[in-house]
Formats: sequence, C-alpha cells, structure tokens
Amino acid sequence: MTIRTLSYLPRLSSPDQRTAPAPQLHQPASKIVNLVPSDLSRGMNADYGVPTELAGPLQQRRALYQPRLPPCLQGATVRVEYDDATTTIDPTGAHAVAQAFPRTYGQRLVTFLSPDDTAGAVKAVNERQPIRVGVVFSGRQSPGGHNVVWGLHDALKVYNPQSILYGFIGGTEGLFANKTLEITNDVLASYKNQGGFDLLGRSIDQIRSSKQVSAAMTTCQDLNLDGLVIVGGVTSNSDAAQLAETLVQKNCKTKVVGVPVSLNGDLKNQFVETTVGFDTVCKVNSQLISNVCLDAISAGKYYYFVRLMGRKASHVALECALQSHPNMLIMGEEVALSKLTLMEVINKICDGVQARAELGKHHGVLLIPEGLIESIPEMYALIQEISILHNNNVPVTEIPTQLSPWAAALFQFLPPFIRRELLLHQESDNSAQLSQIDTEQLLAHLVEAEMIKRTKEGRYKGKKFSSVCHFFGYQARGSLPSNFDCDYAYVLGHISLHMIAAGLTGYMATVANLKDPVHKWRCAAAPLTAMMSVRRHLRGPGAIPIGKPAIHPSPIDLKGKAYE
Amino acid sequence: MTIRTLSYLPRLSSPDQRTAPAPQLHQPASKIVNLVPSDLSRGMNADYGVPTELAGPLQQRRALYQPRLPPCLQGATVRVEYDDATTTIDPTGAHAVAQAFPRTYGQRLVTFLSPDDTAGAVKAVNERQPIRVGVVFSGRQSPGGHNVVWGLHDALKVYNPQSILYGFIGGTEGLFANKTLEITNDVLASYKNQGGFDLLGRSIDQIRSSKQVSAAMTTCQDLNLDGLVIVGGVTSNSDAAQLAETLVQKNCKTKVVGVPVSLNGDLKNQFVETTVGFDTVCKVNSQLISNVCLDAISAGKYYYFVRLMGRKASHVALECALQSHPNMLIMGEEVALSKLTLMEVINKICDGVQARAELGKHHGVLLIPEGLIESIPEMYALIQEISILHNNNVPVTEIPTQLSPWAAALFQFLPPFIRRELLLHQESDNSAQLSQIDTEQLLAHLVEAEMIKRTKEGRYKGKKFSSVCHFFGYQARGSLPSNFDCDYAYVLGHISLHMIAAGLTGYMATVANLKDPVHKWRCAAAPLTAMMSVRRHLRGPGAIPIGKPAIHPSPIDLKGKAYE
Repeated sequence: MTIRTLSYLPRLSSPDQRTAPAPQLHQPASKIVNLVPSDLSRGMNADYGVPTELAGPLQQRRALYQPRLPPCLQGATVRVEYDDATTTIDPTGAHAVAQAFPRTYGQRLVTFLSPDDTAGAVKAVNERQPIRVGVVFSGRQSPGGHNVVWGLHDALKVYNPQSILYGFIGGTEGLFANKTLEITNDVLASYKNQGGFDLLGRSIDQIRSSKQVSAAMTTCQDLNLDGLVIVGGVTSNSDAAQLAETLVQKNCKTKVVGVPVSLNGDLKNQFVETTVGFDTVCKVNSQLISNVCLDAISAGKYYYFVRLMGRKASHVALECALQSHPNMLIMGEEVALSKLTLMEVINKICDGVQARAELGKHHGVLLIPEGLIESIPEMYALIQEISILHNNNVPVTEIPTQLSPWAAALFQFLPPFIRRELLLHQESDNSAQLSQIDTEQLLAHLVEAEMIKRTKEGRYKGKKFSSVCHFFGYQARGSLPSNFDCDYAYVLGHISLHMIAAGLTGYMATVANLKDPVHKWRCAAAPLTAMMSVRRHLRGPGAIPIGKPAIHPSPIDLKGKAYE
Repeated sequence: MTIRTLSYLPRLSSPDQRTAPAPQLHQPASKIVNLVPSDLSRGMNADYGVPTELAGPLQQRRALYQPRLPPCLQGATVRVEYDDATTTIDPTGAHAVAQAFPRTYGQRLVTFLSPDDTAGAVKAVNERQPIRVGVVFSGRQSPGGHNVVWGLHDALKVYNPQSILYGFIGGTEGLFANKTLEITNDVLASYKNQGGFDLLGRSIDQIRSSKQVSAAMTTCQDLNLDGLVIVGGVTSNSDAAQLAETLVQKNCKTKVVGVPVSLNGDLKNQFVETTVGFDTVCKVNSQLISNVCLDAISAGKYYYFVRLMGRKASHVALECALQSHPNMLIMGEEVALSKLTLMEVINKICDGVQARAELGKHHGVLLIPEGLIESIPEMYALIQEISILHNNNVPVTEIPTQLSPWAAALFQFLPPFIRRELLLHQESDNSAQLSQIDTEQLLAHLVEAEMIKRTKEGRYKGKKFSSVCHFFGYQARGSLPSNFDCDYAYVLGHISLHMIAAGLTGYMATVANLKDPVHKWRCAAAPLTAMMSVRRHLRGPGAIPIGKPAIHPSPIDLKGKAYE
C-alpha cells in the first residue's frame, strides 16, 4: 500500500509518532472523529450540511464564541428609518443604471434602530406571521460565511419561531434545482464560527443568464419564499440586483438581499466599509509572511517571492504589508497607473536587490498580488487576446498560433510554465485563472536572469541571487474566522432578516462604524443599484460587457490615506 | 513609486485600510515599531543579536511564557549518574565507529537527577568556578532554537553568575572567524519563545573539513571555552562528534555538546524521542492543511497537491496526515520499499481520483513529502547522475548532454520546470535542493495528463480533473514555537550546561518520557557515537561517504505503530 486513504490512518493515540500532549499555542486540528473512509477533515459525508463532530480542540473552542450584537439588534424588533433616496456612486452612469433597473433604482437608504416604544414593539411581535427565507452561497468561500447563516437563523426564530430558513445545497446550482436543507440549530451546531462554506457548498456562482434567473425565480415561487439572501462578493451582488429587479417586474413576492462576503476586500464603497473574510485572511497571511520574514533573516540567503490573493485589486497585499513589514510590495494599481512594463518591474526589483547587497544583505521578502500580472500593460494585452480566442472556442493548442505578432513574441519570451498557465481554461466569470498563474515564479525567474546578466556585466558584485516562491492563497481562505469576522457576519445575518421583514428588495445589508466596538456599529441597508457604475473601458477580461451597469471591484485609492 | 520599501509604509493607524481592532483569535504581527528602512519584520538591524522590540502583540504575549523545568533541574545543582557503557545502535558498524572515534567511543550513558544531599549541594555551589561556553546554530532554523540558548544562559548564571555565554554570529562561519556576541538577559529579552534563528543567524552549517575543524578549535582556545554547544540536526551532530574527538586528541579542554534541533523529525533513535521544532511545524502545517481541506470540500472541484518538508524521511507528512486527515499520503518510505516507478505512483493517484469521482466527489487533498522524488527509483538514479556531474564541475548547461541514455530520456520526458529545478546548484551538504523541486507540480501535471488520457479512452467519465499546488515549507519554519517546543528546548539548554560542568564531551543532550508532563521528564546525555551507523549503500547524494560512520536520518519504521 503506497497511497494511503483515511480508512487506514491510525488514531493519534498510537505512541510512536505522536508529539507530546502538553497544552499548545498552535493547537492542531487533531483527533480523528467519525472518519468516513476517503473523506475530508471535518469527518464530513458526501452530503453537505450533515451535522458532524468538530475536527479538533481548536475548532471546538472556537464554536463556543458567542458573537456580539449592537443594541438595536438585541431586542425582538427594530425600528426602520428611511433616509434620502439614492442615485449611484457614478453620476455619469446614473441614467444607464436607472434604465436597466426601472423598478429598483433610486430606492432610499435604510437604517435600523432600537424601537422607541417597547410596549408597541412587543405587541407587534405577537401579530407577526412566520417568514420563509432561502440562503445561498455564491462566490469564493470566505471565513465568516457560516455566521451569516447563523445570524439569519437566530433573527428569524426570534422574529417568529414558526419561520423557516432553507439553505441551498451546492450554491447557485442548488438554487436553480431547488435542492434545500432546512437550517436548524442542530444543523448549525458544528458550523458556528467555522471557516469554509461547507455547510452548503458553492458551485457556479452565477445568477445571470435568463435561464438561470428564471430557474431561481421558479424555486422562490415553489418554496413560497418571502426572501432570498445571496452571500457573496462583487459579481454575486450585481447578480442579486438583477434578480431583484426581475422578480419585482414579474410580481414575484420574494425579496432579494445581498450580503458582502469576499476575502479580496474589493467590495468597498461609501456604503460598505469592508467585506466578511478580509480581516481573517489578512491576519492569517500576515502571520505566515512574518514567519517567512523571520526565516529569511535567519538564513540570510534567499529572496522570498510571496503571491497573495487579490485579482482586481491589491487590498490583501497592502493590508498584509502594513501588518507584516516585508521589504517590497509590488502593487498592481501602481504598476497600472505608471504603465510599467514587465522589464521595468524586473529592473526595479533588481535595483532593490542590488542596493540591499551593498548593505551586505542577501535576503528579502516581496509581496505580489495575484492580479499584478494583468496590471502590466503588455501582459494584459496578451491575456486579453488569449481570452478572446478562448471565447471564440479556438482549441488551446492553436491559441499560440493565432496571437498577434507582438503578443506571440511576448508569449514565446515567457518561460514554458507561464505559457502553459496562461492557456488554462477560464474562471466562471470568463476571466483568466489568475490563481493558477505563478506570477511570483515568473518574476523570480526573470529577476534571477537579470541579476546574472548584471553580474556578467560587472554591474553587480554581490552574492548569487537565490529565490524561494510561495503562494499564500487557499491556506488562509479556509481558516477559522477572526472575532471581528464572526461578529460582523452574524450581525449582517440579523440585518438581512430585518430587511426582508421590512419588504426591502435589491438591497445590501451594511454596517457602518466598524472600527468602533460592536455596540457602536450602525446597522443599515443600501440599494444595490446605488453601488453601480458603468465601465466604458474593459478592465480585465471580465464577463460584464462594456456599458452594462454593475458593482465593480474598487481598486486601492492611490490618493487614499492607507496607501500614503 | 512602484516598489515600496518599508520606509514608505504608513502606520497601521491610518483608517482607510485598517480592519477593526476587536480582540482577535488570529492576532497579526502588527504594529510597526522602530522600523529601519528596508528591513525585516522584527525591526531588526543588519546585525544579529541586537535587542529589539517585538513586532506584534502575539509575539509579545508569547514572550511572557515561562518554560517549565523538571524537578531535577530546578535547583542549583544536579546529581550525575553514570550508567552502562554504550556501543552503537548499528552492531555491524561498531568496529568502524570505534576505530574512527578512539577517544570518544564507548562512553557511558549519563542521567541527571535531583541531588540527594541538599546541604552538600549548596556547599558545592560555593566552590564552583565560573564557566565559559559558546553556542552555535548549525542547520536549518527550527522553532524553539532560541529557547536552547535561553535555557543554557539561565542554567549557566545559576551555576555561577560570573559565567559567560558567547553566541557565534552567523552560525558556523562565526565560529570559524571568532565572531561572538555575549548573551545576556537584555539580548535574550526579545527572543524568548520566538521562532527563527535570527538571534545569531546560521550559515554554511558544516564543521567537517580539517580546515573547518581546526578553525573551530582555534576559536575554542582563543576564547578559553569550557564548552561548545552545537544546535542542529543529523549532520550537525555528526560533525559535533568529529569535533569532540579531535579536541580530545589535541588536548583542547573544550567539551562539545550537541542539541537535537531539527524540524524534519528525522533525528530519532533509542536515545532521542523527538527533535525541537518538529511539534510546532507539524501543528502549524496541520492547521494549514485543515484549512485547505475545508476549502476543497467547500468548492468541491479541485485536488490540492501539498508538498511538505522532509528530505530523507516522511515524518512531517505522516504526523500532519494523522492530525489533519487528507485523502492521500504518498510516503517516500513506502514508494522506496515497493520500488514504485513514477508512472506507478501516478496511476495509483489516478485510480484514487477515479474511485472518488464514482462517488460523485471531484475534490481531494494529497500530502507529498519533499523527499518523495528521491524515493522513486528512476528519479533517484537521474538525480544521482546529475549530482556526480555537478561534483565533477560540469557546467549546468552541459549536464543534460552527459547523462546516460536512460537518464537523458527520463530527463527529456519531464516537464521543463522540473528539468530546470533538477539542475539547480546543490545544498551545503552536496545533496539536491529538494525544497526547490516542485514535486507536487510534477505529480499534478502527470496526473492531469493521465486523467485526460483515461477520458479519451473512455475509462474515466467524471468531471475534468483540476489541481492546485502548494508547498508548505518556510511559512511553518519561522513560526512561534509551541509550548512543548518552548519547554523542550529550554530544558535541553539546561542539560547542556550540566553536561559541560560534568566534563562530558561528544554527547547529545536528551530528554526521555516526553509524552508525560514536564515534571516526569527524564534528563540525560547520550554519547553521539552510540547513535552512529555505517552505510554500505549510498542513500541519496549526501556528502557522507560510504563506510564513514555518521548519525543518519531515521526513516519511518514501516513496521512501527504510528504507520500501522
């Protein structure tokens, strides 16, 4: 037996390999419980949502945390206050947005407050009808996603214990096919404050084509839903706005509510301070980067090229740089703004390596956001051409021969592993699979070549340049959520219920004052259309056509305070 | 400015990017303190051993931990008990070891106990002379290394406050050049319970050539050292034995003591239960693997190929598999024993993928030790040939042309990125740079090709196989040590002092009963020569010639309990 599956793995109590059982700072996800052969670490079955024991002591301890609520959400009822009507954050696009969303454009901002009149509020509770809500994960798993479901569930049961919450199994695919799991306290028990989206899973992350929209509507009608909560990022919330508009137009009673969950942190605007998951991912990655920094200085001989998640914006990389202090951060936004070519980026890095060598230092740590590659003009153009050929169903093997002469020349210049990765099939939103492109290896490779060249030319006299490459992506994404994300997600779940109860549709649940303690948080809801803009230039091979209103990823503000 | 160095990074108090300041489970290495432009995360200067503020709140909290000591080490003196004389763990090699180490072979086992007669012990303390000790990091940084120095320092000052501890700056290079830092409480303050080896650094990790041995002896004499403590793994402790023998032969009074610090966990034998760092690295990696497992099951569409450290033995991978429950573990020891070829390994993985697809599962997690590639017979032969050509100073570009026809054919079959990595320059011990060979990508690449082939032949009907590759190496190595490693390292530091005081040389500090609480730990010292064996077959392109006695990495016992 060479390849061992779980069924053969011994229990940890076997003494040979076990390390000492003293209480530990880094507790492992240890203890093998209820193992199903060949299955994964939570002892989960093939089906989603099966209540299971938690995998290890750390998970168990984490499950005990009770997220906090601001005062307005602590009672059985809230007061709903309507503010000004909204336009869009992009005034020049207002007309296009208004035309595309005739029924849901221009809605008013909403704030949730503690009730003025407690006696009246209690009376109101007794007159309430049970409410029926569905929830779906759409978009990449982010730490905290489970707590949105938990908060929604708790608020729903306080609203009226007869209320029902359905989770769609397998993400949007489950929504289209009406595959549901009723969310109960028992189901939630092993998912409270836990990472991943494995309570329900996720799949194609789109509710966009008319077939998809109509399948979603049919499910809402079949389940007689009062509300549908869509948990996701930029594109999922654009889809939520479209679905809300369609349901209103077709007189379907289901209210559509979006919840901002995305580890990239790029769903930020005047209504949304941050997304669920961003805090955790930055903290976990910063810890790993700090470890690598210590490693670099201990041996003093390697440059570490660390790629971080962040396709359209470098938020994660910038935040991690602030927390962990690497030597260099190469921000996509800056590269794009300065229109730096690939070789200019390489030369800047080499200049840094050379300057450090003159100080006697032959080690360092560089952070690279995965979206960097699309920020380099000539690489962007190449990826664009490949994307168009993909969309025209040109076979992968023929793509290199159909490129323009300049794109073909660049393609041939790149190392073979990057060529292969550039040709990979695309993401569900038709953009390049940036997470699969080893940009850090490309840079390390070219920096090494340039340093060898400088050495030969006598311009560099330091030690041989050596690099180690890392991609810190998926290992943070599945992490246990931070207290902040536990609280924030749980609060957003509560707000979602109150939005549905208030009859709001095409809105996103939001919280303001997140830098203050939880009791000062301001709970609100903002129309999704108010967050939209209209792109006149294609930015990245995304699926949203030019001129179509959508919520777009917000890049880092190069005039903003954090950047300065 | 595109490439930003630390001097330009803002403080975390800038509000734009900062995430909420709630108390967190995963605390970041945040807070920018005393930043030196262009330097690393601990705010360290170019020089080693400069006392600095700790980088973040987690590091600060960690520094408060006081490691525990077993009763025998809590007083100012210990009782030294001599047990039986030793031979070697390899009876057939005993003669060769005895010949190579005429002065240090066959020494007795030593145990340290609480003193019988406290009054006598106190009297003894007053008659003690100050003691002079040097300590050097040799080998890869492992969490806990700093606590060896801390324990040694504390024991030394209790022994006689006039005693002096020197740390060699820059590892063995500092030893040869007599570059020292006097270790004081002030120096230690910001390194207690911290990861990395950055208090002193490390470099070439060898005391082997006669030039190196004689430089080390000169330093010991110049500093008038009573003892030299070498902190390291398998090869460093082999070197320690050789140095001890030489110093005895040359009538140098310095006693040489080895301390088992290695994250690979391969320095294990009847005297050594585990090495410092192994516990931490397995726990941190297991947590990351658990995160990846959650991620895999959430999206349900990727196979994750995770490579782990472990050159000659798969201890880390096995322990992590026990803690985190992946789907497959490919152990080098098993592959070597069964003499599985590369394509047999690939086919076994593909069979697993296919079996899971029939259960409707298109995701999974595989663990791969970095040493796996040398366990595959034909790959081993290829690496061997390349190594020999390297040693004969054949230029890298010509190596492919000078391979044997079969090795050349295999080399050409491999993807270009692996070909490039195989030709990399070698480690300090002349072995291949396994950490730089992306074995996980090689396997993922070949598995994908095989799954496409099976699809075309109609043997596989599941969804398209997709993989994501990770190397969990350096990010765990720099981690904060676990409580266990903090305690274990601190205790070993104490034992080292008592060994020197007892006049032992060519010994390793050891602790038995590590699975029990600290108060039951048994403190001892074992002759390094007793751990030696003589290899008759070359195992991996290591530097230790056939027939020369050495401490060898212990592979996983395929008949052992952990494996079963």
